[in-house]
Formats: sequence, structure tokens, C-alpha cells
Amino acid sequence: MATRSQLALVLRRLSRAPANLNRQCSLQQSLSRPVRHFSSSGPRLFRRTAVASNGNFTSEKYPDIKRDSRFAQLTGDHVAYFRELLGSESAIIDGVTNDATDDIEPFNSDWMRKYRGHCKLVLKPGSTEEVSKILEYCNDNMLAVVPQGGNTGLVGGSVPVFDEIVINMSRMNQIIGFDEVSGTLVAEAGCILEVADQYLASKGYIFPLDLGAKGSCHIGGNLATNAGGLRLLRYGSLHGTVLGIEAVLADGTVVDDLCKLRKNNTGYDLKQLFIGSEGTIGIITKVSIQCPQRSPAQNVAFFGLESFDQVQQAFREAKGQLSEILSAFELMDEGSQALVRQVTNNKRPLEEQYPFYCLIETSGSNADHDSEKLQAFLEDVMEKGIVADGTLAQDETQLKSLWAWREGITEALGHLGGVYKYDVSIPLKELYQLVEDTRARVDAAGLLGDTEEYPVRAVVGYGHMGDANLHLNVSTRWFDDRVEKALEPFVYEWIADRQGSISAEHGLGLMKKKYIGYSRNPTMIGLMKNIKRTFDPNGILNPYKYL
Amino acid sequence: MATRSQLALVLRRLSRAPANLNRQCSLQQSLSRPVRHFSSSGPRLFRRTAVASNGNFTSEKYPDIKRDSRFAQLTGDHVAYFRELLGSESAIIDGVTNDATDDIEPFNSDWMRKYRGHCKLVLKPGSTEEVSKILEYCNDNMLAVVPQGGNTGLVGGSVPVFDEIVINMSRMNQIIGFDEVSGTLVAEAGCILEVADQYLASKGYIFPLDLGAKGSCHIGGNLATNAGGLRLLRYGSLHGTVLGIEAVLADGTVVDDLCKLRKNNTGYDLKQLFIGSEGTIGIITKVSIQCPQRSPAQNVAFFGLESFDQVQQAFREAKGQLSEILSAFELMDEGSQALVRQVTNNKRPLEEQYPFYCLIETSGSNADHDSEKLQAFLEDVMEKGIVADGTLAQDETQLKSLWAWREGITEALGHLGGVYKYDVSIPLKELYQLVEDTRARVDAAGLLGDTEEYPVRAVVGYGHMGDANLHLNVSTRWFDDRVEKALEPFVYEWIADRQGSISAEHGLGLMKKKYIGYSRNPTMIGLMKNIKRTFDPNGILNPYKYL
Repeated sequence: MATRSQLALVLRRLSRAPANLNRQCSLQQSLSRPVRHFSSSGPRLFRRTAVASNGNFTSEKYPDIKRDSRFAQLTGDHVAYFRELLGSESAIIDGVTNDATDDIEPFNSDWMRKYRGHCKLVLKPGSTEEVSKILEYCNDNMLAVVPQGGNTGLVGGSVPVFDEIVINMSRMNQIIGFDEVSGTLVAEAGCILEVADQYLASKGYIFPLDLGAKGSCHIGGNLATNAGGLRLLRYGSLHGTVLGIEAVLADGTVVDDLCKLRKNNTGYDLKQLFIGSEGTIGIITKVSIQCPQRSPAQNVAFFGLESFDQVQQAFREAKGQLSEILSAFELMDEGSQALVRQVTNNKRPLEEQYPFYCLIETSGSNADHDSEKLQAFLEDVMEKGIVADGTLAQDETQLKSLWAWREGITEALGHLGGVYKYDVSIPLKELYQLVEDTRARVDAAGLLGDTEEYPVRAVVGYGHMGDANLHLNVSTRWFDDRVEKALEPFVYEWIADRQGSISAEHGLGLMKKKYIGYSRNPTMIGLMKNIKRTFDPNGILNPYKYL
Repeated sequence: MATRSQLALVLRRLSRAPANLNRQCSLQQSLSRPVRHFSSSGPRLFRRTAVASNGNFTSEKYPDIKRDSRFAQLTGDHVAYFRELLGSESAIIDGVTNDATDDIEPFNSDWMRKYRGHCKLVLKPGSTEEVSKILEYCNDNMLAVVPQGGNTGLVGGSVPVFDEIVINMSRMNQIIGFDEVSGTLVAEAGCILEVADQYLASKGYIFPLDLGAKGSCHIGGNLATNAGGLRLLRYGSLHGTVLGIEAVLADGTVVDDLCKLRKNNTGYDLKQLFIGSEGTIGIITKVSIQCPQRSPAQNVAFFGLESFDQVQQAFREAKGQLSEILSAFELMDEGSQALVRQVTNNKRPLEEQYPFYCLIETSGSNADHDSEKLQAFLEDVMEKGIVADGTLAQDETQLKSLWAWREGITEALGHLGGVYKYDVSIPLKELYQLVEDTRARVDAAGLLGDTEEYPVRAVVGYGHMGDANLHLNVSTRWFDDRVEKALEPFVYEWIADRQGSISAEHGLGLMKKKYIGYSRNPTMIGLMKNIKRTFDPNGILNPYKYL
């Protein structure tokens, strides 16, 4: 149990929080080794580089997936139609009648270069009407399409597998309107999340979603994948904040559900089906969303704990004592922090090491009140012996430094080599048990060790504790079939046994299509397939994925 | 502009807030006159009394609605099947082989006695399996059913029109479990909202929904109607807070989507379709919902304003300054308050009269912080001349008294005679214009006046300002065809012109089925009908309503 003098020490220690961690963490992910399950929780620092145009195709990595022969092959006539429809040269990349491989490559591959298609045609519509005419034509001519936003997804959902036409939404990027009294934003689907958020900042509001990829991802893509991110704990999911959408169905029908009202009980809430549908039942073209006012005060605390039981106690106390100002409660284990330290060589926020660390963020309208609540909370949890040590950011630089110990994990791991990543949700009390059980399993198989002869460097866990969302990461020195066999289906079965989710926030895409049965029963999957058929009877929208 | 001394006066005036308003407002609604559009925003004080068993049938009031001849007539064989299935005598009310009119009447009529069916059989299943077997049998035998929760709806959605079997959920009323760390409650659909909330109170949590009918309504019914209520502003809609459901489809298939996770991106979010589906695609049998921690501190302020522009300014300032602690922002016009005063004879909270009044509630974790924020807010809006006068509740009794000036409106109006009621949503800046335009129209038709020769006593407006949800009420001295002609379709067209909702929170039911086109376009209605057909191909679930 911490004494009062220890606590005072902690509260004085604030000025010594490392100041430049964020910058030092800005490392490109190493992609030098071929790793099948390489992924990341956010491409914040991704810079697109030239990609060699040979090999590494999804169709080669997944030979079981066959091109659907019902789909037509693209011809010059098709291209001519689209060229006339879209008018502008900048709205079309034609690899059918030209060699445009290099131009098309960024649309053919995901940012991790894990998935790569054979697309020969990219269309960039500038209006809902153009999206409608494109889809009507594709549906009539059995041309498969892939809707694409910022292409920052993690499960291969936004790139083609074969020769599907990419419908890229980047030209539909305008903010349409904002109501300063109600806080309702209306924007085109291709609007970049950070652009929308900066616009809202100028009005004193905030976009109710924040995630690492915000500089690239589109709000339409956020809806289509039901993005979760860092502040779901505070602002809730998109199912609650989105007020309306405009979308185009497979046959070109425009569904105008761009409602700007918080309440509208007139029939089935159809927009909800589009949220998280990953482009399989329609293309979202416009979004209407309820935005909260921006909080002028933000605080961040970082603390160490001796056990996962204490992490849970701390979470409960935080919810009770910080209640309405709590905006994030993040979890990191010692293993993940040790790797960040190894890569960045930064000074750790706390002097001692603990099995667990939590980062708490508060956002409120009164800085004095929030600091008082946060300090009272820290004092309380230390006196009760729940928290072993802690530090509070004193300024914006320290705040970012502390966040970097959480947000820098993905990059640090990527820098060290390949990573098997699982984005899962499990009832809180067993959340960390998955990491321990996985580590024990890999260890028992003789695959885990500190020296170069072991394929696995570490099994670590971190994530959005407030949402029971764990990122289980297995950091490897090289790709090894034995590791994959140890992990799968073990991890999925473990999660299914606890009614967890095998994809908490990343979606299904191509990567998890075949695993949906671990989180959804056959009845639900059957209903989903009915819905898919109802909305897209020819199956032209984002084929080979999702269901 | 209010001076500081005026403000001090206001803040001292608190002890004079009327103490017994709530009790004095407890009046039964007068139902002595036949009024077609009589309804109310909440049956909090309703006591079920013996109902005369002749006349007033929905089928007579709506002669255009014909019984669907595809549905079978109930026979003794059907009853025998259900009797054997359900076992217990208390689980079935048989009016097919007996005369059970009096026993069945409470299930045949809604609480307003506005809708009345010809039901001859009430079934009260005690388990999901029983619901499943009932529906399977009904679907196989083409027997139409009406799912029924607490029967507190306002649009005739939960009572039969003809001889549909009532499936009443009151026996499935158990709380199944609660996770004290995550705040996830799992309960059967027939659990009464207030019971759930009291259970949660004992755990330091709150149900994220509150409404007048909480003593009677079922949480399954709340989901089925997507109930909004008083604190949607703070806790968001059920589309955001509900984590999972279990439901039974028309053919008896059990959909087990009783997820307890905040994040689960594995396929279409099917549960969202059931939220607000009013029993037309399945019967919700269990509910899993995310509950916030209960706020120990609550404050209520009540103030007067000179214009609707100032109401909007006050709302914006409240959102900015009270931000995370704001839990309600309610609007009442002078007309509505004058009627409450007329009926209750209570002393008004403020000495002067103003065209508009607002009630603000804050809920937070620290009483001192909240009071400081609220007082600073009041000081600010008075100094800026936005608010003309105000008072702050000093204790629980005063808090309830102030709330009664808002919550007592429905009963006061009911006490005075018939009321044409419209529960609508309109973009905020035009919210009150509907009341003014309607009043002008009724006045121009020579129907509005202070003396007994005018059918309309007053056209008033009040509601959930924070949700842009207006209750437009036309208080009448007697039912008069001219009034209805002046109001409809005028009101619906006015709302449609502004992309508003003709049913913000009450749903469609029977009452608004034919008006859905004012708030949804033919494309959306077509998609909804597809969904209905997919889930309930025989159309046995809650026929004649919704779509």
C-alpha cells in the first residue's frame, strides 16, 4: 500500500515524464520478412512507397479462393462507358487499354502490403449520381467492384482479390454542412477523418471517433467498417452517433437516409445495416453524424499495477470517480512496454517495472475540476493499494509522451519483425488470461525464448480496456509454420469458448471471413446471407470477403 | 441584461420553489369525451380500471382496415395445443372455449383506451423455448400474433386489431446477470424498466433510459419501440447502448445475439433491426445492455427566456459550459405552463411569466464541481441577457417540484379535455415555428379562443429540446372535425417540408402506419418491406401496423 509520502513523490515526479517519446517512436514498420499475419492497429505513420509490381498476390496466397466466373471480364467498351460518364481524366485510371500498373498499384494493395489484387480499373466518382450510374452499369454487366475509402483497413477489405473495379471515394471529400446548435455534421463519405475533425475543432466540436489512421482514413470507410478507436468509451459506437447516411445499392438505387435528427422512429433503422457492412450491401456516399462539444481540458495519467485483478479494480474506480470525464482507459502489459523501450530507448514514465500499466485520459469542461478529480482518484487508488505507482502529465508535451507508450506499441513491434496480431474482445475478467494462456502454449511448444534460435520473441497484450478490446500480439523473429499451428485455431477457439469476438474493431474483410463462425452462430450467418442477397442479388459488391 | 444583484436574487430565491407540485399534478386523465387523437407522452400515473366491454373497437374506428383472410380462425384445437405447451393455467387466458372477455380486456385495449381489439386468446410464455414453440405453431397454422410488453405504447402497436393472439411477455421478467466491472446487464424482455433500474441502483449503476411509463413498461418493449425518453441527450439511443438481444423469429427460430461485448465487428449488426421494429420481425426475449455508473450528484435549474432564439443560445451555452454533466435540457412554452398552473393551482417557479422556460438537469460525480459549473453557467447566460430569470433546486423535493412543471404537462392537458398530440422531430432552429404556425392556422380558421364557443383552448409546445424532439399539443374543449381538418395533413406536410420526423420517439404502430411516407421515401419503405418479408414471410407478426 502506498503511503502519503510515496504519493507526494509520485505527484512531484510529473516533470520528469519523457518529453520526446512520440518523435522517437516514429519508425517505419519493417516489412523485410514475409509474414502472413502481419498487421497493425493503425497506420498513423505509414508512408506509401513504390511497390514492386511482381508477386505477392492475394490470389496466390489464398489459392482456395477462385475468381467467380459469373463476373464479366473488363473490356475497352466498359472503359469507354466509364470514361464518358466521369468526364475528367483524373477520375479514371485505365489499366485495361493501357499499361497503368504503377498508377494502379496503390489501389491494388493495402497499406501493409499484405493483400494485393489484379485490378485494372480505378474509378473516382465525384458525385452520388456518378456512383449510382457506375453501379447500375456494373450490376447490369456483371462487373464486380470494391468500394475503397482511405485504404487503411487491416483485414484486406478494401482492395481487390482479382480484377474487381476499385471505386475510390477520395473525390467525394466535401463537408456539406454543420449545425452549430445541434452539433450535426454532414459530409461526403470521402472526407478524411482528420479534415472533418479539424473543421469541427474550429467550431468547438469534435468528431466522435479518433484512431491512428485519421490522417488517411475516410469517414465513409469508418462507417463501413464500424471503426472503434480510442474514445468509444466516452462517445459510444457509430451505431449511436451516426444520424443518417446516403448510400447507393448494387443496382444503382440511391438510398437517401441522410437524416439529421437524433430521434426518428419511423420504420426499421436501415442505416444501421450499412454501419459495419464493409461495402458488401452498398456504397456509403454521405454521412450525417452527431458531434459532441470539444472539451477544453485534457489530462493523462499513467500508472503501474501488480496484477490484472488490480487493473480491473482500477477500471471500476475510474468509472465511478472519474465517471463523466473519463475519455480513455488503456491497458499495456510489461512485455509490450519493454519492446517499446527496446526500440525507442526512451526513459520509462515510471521508475520501477510492473506487470501492467494503465493510461487514463480525462476530457472535461473545467481543468481545475478535472485535475482535482483525477488527483483524488490517484490518491484513492494508491491508498487502497490498487495502483503501485503513477504519474500525471503536466503539459501537452508530457501528455503526448505518455500516450506514445500506448500508441507506439504497434510500430515498435513492427520494427522488431513480424507479428501475429489478434484484435479481440473478451469479457473483462478473462481479458488478459488469453495472453497468458497463449504465452504458455507457445512456450510449451518450445517456440518462445530470448535468444535467436526461438522464433517467438514475446507474447504481449495491450488495448482498449474500457471497451474490453484486447490486442494480442505475438512478436516473432521469423515466420514459422509451427508458430501459426500453435496459435490457430487455438486463439479462435479460446475466444469462442468465452463468447468473445474474433474481430472487435477491425472487421472481417478477407482475413477473417472464414473465421466468422467462431463469433456468430449459423442462424445469424444465415440471416446475414439473406440480407446480402436482398441488397446485392448479383453479388457484385466486394466479393470473396465478409461472409 | 440581468445585473449581478438580480442574479443574486435569483440564486437566493431557491428556497421558494414550490414543494408539492408533483403530488398535486397527480391527476387521472379525463376520458369523458371521445377524442380520436387522444394520447399522452407517458402513462406514469395511469391506473387500469374496469372497461366497459361494448363498442369502441379499432375495427369500427378504422373501417378501411380489413381482417386478412389468410389468417386462420382460432379453434379449440389450437387452444388445446397451447394449453399443453404452456402447462400452467396462469400462462393462458382462453376466450375461445370460454367467455373470458373481462379477463382479456386489459390485453385487448391500450392504456389510453384509444385502441381495442377482438383478441380471444392471451399466451404468457415463461421461456424462450415456449415463445419459439408458440411462434412455430402459429406460423405453421397461419395464426396472427401481437407481441405485448407492458402495453404502455402510444400508437396502438401492442394491442390486436382483430383476433390476433396476444403473446404477453410479463412472465419472462428475470434479471439474468450483471457484470459489475463492465456494467453489462442481461435480463429477460419482460423485466419492468423500473425493476431493472432499481436493481442497478443497488449496484451503483443506472439504466441508460428513463421515461414516464417506467413503472409498467418492459425493457423488451423499450427496445422494440426504440424508446427515447428523458436522458437520451446524455446516454444516447438504444442503438448505441444495447449490446445484444435474443429474439424469436416468426417461424420459431431463436436468434441468439445476446452479445455482452461493446465491440464485435463480425458481420451485419442484426440486433439493430429489432430495435424499433415494433414486434414486426420477431419477438425480443432477452436483452444485454451497457449501463453507465449512477451519478451521485444531481442538480436542476429552471429558467425563463424571452424568445426561441434565446432558447437556442441557452442550449448551446449549456452544451459548452455544462458539457459532460448535462443530462437533460427540456423546453416548455408559456401556454403549456399556464395550463399546468390552471389545473394544479401551484405557485410558479419564477415570479414573472416568459414566452419560454427551460429545465436543465446535471448529473455528475462531484456535487461541488457540478454546482459551481451550473452557477457559473447561470451567471453567464444572465449576464449575456440570454436568460431572463432562473431558479436552482436546493434539495430533492425542489428538484422534483421543478421537474413536475415539465412532466405534469401531459396530465394537466388530459385533465382539461381532449388533446391532439404530435410527437415530432424538426431541425432545432425551426422547432418552435411549428407551434406558432399551427396556432396561427387554427386561429385563422376561427377555432381558437378563450371562451366556451371555441373548440380549441390552446396550441402549446414542449419537449426534449436536447434531442430536437417537440411535443405539439392542441388542447380542445370538444372533438370537432374542423380542428382535425385544420391540423391534418397540415402538420405532417409542414414536418416533411423540413425533413423532420412525424414520430420522434413513439413509433408508428397503427396510428402512424399510413403517415410513414411523410418521413421516409418510397425507396426506404420498399427496402423495409423486403426486410419484413425476409423475416416474416407469412406476415403473422403484428399485422395491420407499422408498414
